[in-house]
Amino acid sequence: MNKGVLYVLSAPSGCGKGTVLKEIFARNNNIYYSVSATTRSPREGETDGVNYFFVSKEKFEELIASGGMLEHAQFCGNYYGTPKKKVMDELESGRDVILEIETAGAMKVKAAYPQAVLIFMLPPSLATLKKRLTGRGTDSEEVIAKRISEAEREINMSYKYDYVFVNDDLSDAVSSLEMIMKSAKYLVNQNDDLIKGVLQKC
Amino acid sequence: MNKGVLYVLSAPSGCGKGTVLKEIFARNNNIYYSVSATTRSPREGETDGVNYFFVSKEKFEELIASGGMLEHAQFCGNYYGTPKKKVMDELESGRDVILEIETAGAMKVKAAYPQAVLIFMLPPSLATLKKRLTGRGTDSEEVIAKRISEAEREINMSYKYDYVFVNDDLSDAVSSLEMIMKSAKYLVNQNDDLIKGVLQKC
Repeated sequence: MNKGVLYVLSAPSGCGKGTVLKEIFARNNNIYYSVSATTRSPREGETDGVNYFFVSKEKFEELIASGGMLEHAQFCGNYYGTPKKKVMDELESGRDVILEIETAGAMKVKAAYPQAVLIFMLPPSLATLKKRLTGRGTDSEEVIAKRISEAEREINMSYKYDYVFVNDDLSDAVSSLEMIMKSAKYLVNQNDDLIKGVLQKC
Repeated sequence: MNKGVLYVLSAPSGCGKGTVLKEIFARNNNIYYSVSATTRSPREGETDGVNYFFVSKEKFEELIASGGMLEHAQFCGNYYGTPKKKVMDELESGRDVILEIETAGAMKVKAAYPQAVLIFMLPPSLATLKKRLTGRGTDSEEVIAKRISEAEREINMSYKYDYVFVNDDLSDAVSSLEMIMKSAKYLVNQNDDLIKGVLQKC
């Protein structure tokens, strides 16, 4: 029984990560999408265990202290993080897991679990990203400029990932991500048990 | 224009590497199979530039001295090695290159050219490999024992490779290798130019 693979997917905001992942999940039902935990209050329409696990600050800090968080961060006074147990249980059972997290969290996951496969989704260019964000018509020019500069910072972190691919055409992007995910099973760091098995004395 | 990818394939003798590679070349014509240079004399039926580049000892040592060999080794008083220029020219022109070399050479190539993608083909088990070698009926028990111990040493080196796959069923093995080769194009170390392009100021 092979362990599952832990995939970490990051992308700048506005790159279409959600749309690509939706397609991946529509095509593959043996992947667990890791739900984050947070101490912020649920918003209208959010469901516990689906959008987030909503937990108290005390509970979250208890989990941090006991090593129960694979990674965590604070934003605007609230904690966000990846509960470790569920992820590890799924991997042990042979199921693959996807974490959709930002770059700092991805680095923490890699440090805690070196077999994690880090995948970065790129926009075709910063110019395209700017166009997409402008096209939405929801953000001011100032907010867009801030997002672009944040995207630039994140893309510079992609050098620390294992794989990169571009989301230009949706169907190409989904194919790229699927191929990366399948072939990552051949990475040597996923195959300790296989190699040990081959080496068994004859 | 993307650079080609340099693939290094190693496998213990008797694993069927030649058969798998033959299939790969039958299906893909944009891959250059790097021909080694050697100072040994051509054998009956061997053609210069096809089986090997047959060169003099002086010429070979000149190439070593001028950094013209990507890797080289000596066996039974003869030199064997990978001429660098042809490989680099093909990669620059966007063509992928396969080197079929043993583990020590693979490590040297990785040190000289870190973007090289190291792939190790495993037998299903040492027992299967022993059965295959015995089945050939060409080697004495002593020679087979030596080959198995050599295979064991090489398989232990597979931990230093990027990818591993098993050759149990030929068609599965070819598919595995093809998938590894295709997906390796998404490895972050193959995509410096892509990332730089994305980051261009908008």
